[in-house]
Amino acid sequence: MSNSIILVINAGSSSLKFSVFRVNGAGNLQAVVRGQMDGIGTRPCLKAKDGTGALLVESDFTTSEAATVADAITLVGTWLREHLQHELLFAVGHRVVHGGTQFSHPVLVNSEVFTTLEQLIPLAPLHQPHNLAAIRAIRERQPQVPQVACFDTAFHRTHPQVADLYALPWKYYESGVRRYGFHGLSYEYIALILPKIAPEISKGRVIVAHLGSGASLCALQAGKSIDSTMGFSPLDGVPMGTRPGALDPGVLLHLANQCGLSGVEMEKLLYKESGLLGLSGISSDMRILLESHDSRAQLAVEYFVYYTAKQIGALTAVLGGVDGIVFTAGIGEHSPVIRARILQACAWLGVSVDTAANERGGPCISSADSRVSVWAIPTNEELMIARHTLGLINSRKGEYVE
Amino acid sequence: MSNSIILVINAGSSSLKFSVFRVNGAGNLQAVVRGQMDGIGTRPCLKAKDGTGALLVESDFTTSEAATVADAITLVGTWLREHLQHELLFAVGHRVVHGGTQFSHPVLVNSEVFTTLEQLIPLAPLHQPHNLAAIRAIRERQPQVPQVACFDTAFHRTHPQVADLYALPWKYYESGVRRYGFHGLSYEYIALILPKIAPEISKGRVIVAHLGSGASLCALQAGKSIDSTMGFSPLDGVPMGTRPGALDPGVLLHLANQCGLSGVEMEKLLYKESGLLGLSGISSDMRILLESHDSRAQLAVEYFVYYTAKQIGALTAVLGGVDGIVFTAGIGEHSPVIRARILQACAWLGVSVDTAANERGGPCISSADSRVSVWAIPTNEELMIARHTLGLINSRKGEYVE
Repeated sequence: MSNSIILVINAGSSSLKFSVFRVNGAGNLQAVVRGQMDGIGTRPCLKAKDGTGALLVESDFTTSEAATVADAITLVGTWLREHLQHELLFAVGHRVVHGGTQFSHPVLVNSEVFTTLEQLIPLAPLHQPHNLAAIRAIRERQPQVPQVACFDTAFHRTHPQVADLYALPWKYYESGVRRYGFHGLSYEYIALILPKIAPEISKGRVIVAHLGSGASLCALQAGKSIDSTMGFSPLDGVPMGTRPGALDPGVLLHLANQCGLSGVEMEKLLYKESGLLGLSGISSDMRILLESHDSRAQLAVEYFVYYTAKQIGALTAVLGGVDGIVFTAGIGEHSPVIRARILQACAWLGVSVDTAANERGGPCISSADSRVSVWAIPTNEELMIARHTLGLINSRKGEYVE
Repeated sequence: MSNSIILVINAGSSSLKFSVFRVNGAGNLQAVVRGQMDGIGTRPCLKAKDGTGALLVESDFTTSEAATVADAITLVGTWLREHLQHELLFAVGHRVVHGGTQFSHPVLVNSEVFTTLEQLIPLAPLHQPHNLAAIRAIRERQPQVPQVACFDTAFHRTHPQVADLYALPWKYYESGVRRYGFHGLSYEYIALILPKIAPEISKGRVIVAHLGSGASLCALQAGKSIDSTMGFSPLDGVPMGTRPGALDPGVLLHLANQCGLSGVEMEKLLYKESGLLGLSGISSDMRILLESHDSRAQLAVEYFVYYTAKQIGALTAVLGGVDGIVFTAGIGEHSPVIRARILQACAWLGVSVDTAANERGGPCISSADSRVSVWAIPTNEELMIARHTLGLINSRKGEYVE
């Protein structure tokens, strides 16, 4: 198995992110390539770096060369074969947004599994089809390579039933209207490494704040997810780059019944035009808002801090107190200002910040006398997918039959 | 002004609740009648009791006699004139659900105000028209009697802007998509009497849980509302008898785009078929659910407790800690079991319950060593409206010109 590689794919509507991990003899994983094809169907561009961050390729394609996710898979595959010519593609791991109620763990994709994943499209119509298009394209080109689906929802299947429900007629629960939760691969990664980085809290009550252009928080009890701010969709919870977070259902009735918006128009409004972008009118990017002197940009930042701190309160109630808070993802890892402002709003919990440690990015950013231990820890969803893929293939060796 | 009375009206789609307060010489208010006309347009029935709870009238009408709110006003007016024949109708106070951004206090209704209130109908299409129908009917019958509109939203206009916003494009905020909050007359009443009942917390950080068939919670800082679990509509926040409380906006997109529900169908689902009723499949009435051995009834109760405790955590974050919790309204005043279960989930805040005091209904239900002082206090929205009405008319005497 030496010199074999695992390819990790995260396919969206207009971009295909990929990473390559080399599996060494001891079964350790080393990231050797990280890249993405952007602008699929519009202005396709392939860019990739090696494990040290050095640029390996940056090249444009015509629209017709990369019109679809399947085309992008072909182009990325061609480039990877040239770049990694002596290495064997051991398996492909995919980030798949929705595992429904069926999948609480990663799964080796066979025809039956693929059909089940297709049936989940109505639960994630904007994302699931692209994830599946990538799996299908690879099966067509390299049917002998095992593929593993790793789900954003799976880690949350440990929620108690009360945190899996909405107060709707029961038939909706049965038809799949549940609080699935997302960013599960990120939370799982944090839960996995927490015993090494912060063993004193890893068995306790921890709130993980995955704050990026998508954002959510997760309540971990002894490393298991018991609740999360996202539910049925990736819209709920805290405000995001272009998504609103929690929204009174009456607002949607108003948009439909009084403003005359169609379902599709509401979808565009809520996925693409809301959140920090909608509030500020300037940008969905927290860095730009933090540098702006515009009053609405500042209000958007205040809103983000306010509702994140409020959700920390809500999840603390669910946990019955909190031992640790972990910040991760783009904003969580890289914005000491936002971390400091959120933590200032958590002073009532006994949180005390080590300002210098927060400025330099931690990992521990609370002071010695803080009643709650606070951390900034980089997440690594791609590595989590690669580990799952390696683990699942190894455990199933000889069992893989199509 | 001796022997003059104030009539308080709360008009809904199918019922008209009314109370009569006698204004004594010192300007004190005494409740002398409390009644309602139910089944407007279907099986009208007028029922009223006196200040001691003794039945004064219970009589049925034909559908055509009370087909509308205006008819009900006529019938109630006729009965009141007979019953209170020597007393002068001093003024009428109305519970009006929506005061928009315009009204942060009660207002004497003249033509201009009435027009403004009509313009707010799109913000509360299910309730505002009935409130206004009652005002119109009384103006037509007794134009000389001053009428005062008291708003469910007004008390929340002290929210900071960040708690008045959703993360949507700014034009929606400007067009009125804001976190108005409701049950304001109840919270205002509690804030008004708290200095007498619990002076040690009245200037501090208090969470009021108005838990009835409609339910919300309010964060009071020194008696002012700074945040609330209801926002744009009375649907958000904690689960209610037939309303869901907080709901992922993605669920509504799913109902519209995947399940094909129209806006009007979603409105019916969310206002009439969800909440405790939807979850349990049995009843919207907490008393019935508490007595049931059905597993879904028990789950509905658990859900109510879970999300109420979670919102207490969220509002504690907003307040930066909590000094007192007040339970009020139907469930809040009358269900020691629900109070105990919610408070058990708040043990992490240092809440300790005095079980005997809770059983007998308080008013103080926390033990002496509780870090948070907890109370069960009956609300009185009708008295609040009567006080506002009396105060506004007295302050405007001689000024009232139409």
